[in-house]
Amino acid sequence: MVIEYDGTHYHGWQSQREVVTIQRTIEHTLQKILGESVRITGAGRTDAGVHALGQVANFRTKAGMDSHTLKKALNALLPKDIVIRRTEEVSPDFDSCIHAISKTYRYSILNREDRCAVGRYYCLHVSRPLNLEAMEEAATSLVGEHDFSSFRSSSSSSRNPVRQVIRAEFQREGEMIHFFIESNGFLHHMVRSIVGTLIEVGGGRLTPSDFRAILYARDRRLAGKTADPHGLCLMEVKYPEAEFVSNDRARKERISTH
Amino acid sequence: MVIEYDGTHYHGWQSQREVVTIQRTIEHTLQKILGESVRITGAGRTDAGVHALGQVANFRTKAGMDSHTLKKALNALLPKDIVIRRTEEVSPDFDSCIHAISKTYRYSILNREDRCAVGRYYCLHVSRPLNLEAMEEAATSLVGEHDFSSFRSSSSSSRNPVRQVIRAEFQREGEMIHFFIESNGFLHHMVRSIVGTLIEVGGGRLTPSDFRAILYARDRRLAGKTADPHGLCLMEVKYPEAEFVSNDRARKERISTH
Repeated sequence: MVIEYDGTHYHGWQSQREVVTIQRTIEHTLQKILGESVRITGAGRTDAGVHALGQVANFRTKAGMDSHTLKKALNALLPKDIVIRRTEEVSPDFDSCIHAISKTYRYSILNREDRCAVGRYYCLHVSRPLNLEAMEEAATSLVGEHDFSSFRSSSSSSRNPVRQVIRAEFQREGEMIHFFIESNGFLHHMVRSIVGTLIEVGGGRLTPSDFRAILYARDRRLAGKTADPHGLCLMEVKYPEAEFVSNDRARKERISTH
Repeated sequence: MVIEYDGTHYHGWQSQREVVTIQRTIEHTLQKILGESVRITGAGRTDAGVHALGQVANFRTKAGMDSHTLKKALNALLPKDIVIRRTEEVSPDFDSCIHAISKTYRYSILNREDRCAVGRYYCLHVSRPLNLEAMEEAATSLVGEHDFSSFRSSSSSSRNPVRQVIRAEFQREGEMIHFFIESNGFLHHMVRSIVGTLIEVGGGRLTPSDFRAILYARDRRLAGKTADPHGLCLMEVKYPEAEFVSNDRARKERISTH
């Protein structure tokens, strides 16, 4: 499944006891439709308040329902803030987390004096003018294979802090600044720590070379604060074509939304 | 004042008894700040659920507060879904409704099979594919001076149904179709009736010449249904420069947002 959701009212992706999560909400709906208990595996565990336009998740079922009917039933029964964009039958050993080649996140910053009313759940408001050129220069040092220990949360459980960043770039759209980052994987709070630190660069409190030094220091205490979750959106998850797809139509379309 | 608001949780702009409106919310906040009862005049009375990026409103006060301090106080005290983008002292006889030369509205349609999760309060979802060329052709007949009786609500109280449309055009942005319409004035539900009928053209149930015939018939029963309010946004109100502004800085900036 390729999934779009507005994370505003959820305690993130991953199922937890006693709170409403996106994973749990989809699992409950699948159970209603398929008449069996279902456990889904997501490509990325987004935090509370984080959105997705292209989350990917898979599950196993004994029910013989075709994927088109399943998609229609899911979209009819899921709450308005979750929508299934695509369903495909995949090979039995496909795992949307393990087999992901890369994930792309977007972080949106509204950079103007006044706070935001329209669309305020989808961007971070930064009132001081940001120097986008300095932020762009700093972001170039992220590309490549690095130990991202400086940009991980203290609760991050990953043993290996090395990740390969494929793309880290900005797009300006009027008062809005979008930061796109694609990597073979992300540590917990990695994008939000990076963005918090890039904002320090944009505000002039750090230089692009300070930013590089923070990355190389592998010390979380040097980085800026973790940017709020609501500006973040999981845009796309890429897979080796042959693994993900099980039919011709899907082979032609890349898993990409927006 | 130039005002941005998310109309989702309001019963429209205009003050009414026992319901929360944007006008009333701003009036209450002004009263707190200025210590006197204030009545504000808005350029356009947006319906429940309609948004604004560039609503304009004016009021009279005896308080000697400068406009910059007033703006900061308003934005500190107003709820998160209303933000003041600009405040200027104007000439005593200025009226933001009467003196408006034109208003521009945007109506946003998400045209894809799946409904919308992210940003669902800001667009209408239309699942059947729309023929944008046909809609564009139909929209050209709106430009100029016309009797818009076919596109007004039965509750519209305006005596004169003639309006001058300056611009009526579409912009596509991926799956999103934006319709922009600028006019010297709008009848009640005029934009939403026009959009509802243009969607019939896009879906093939009406031709562009049917659309023109409906406009010329001046008969509300012929038009399509009134499109839902949440796709609509008041973008900009224009004034003759000399009337609106009272200082040089404002004279240089046009009243325009986004």
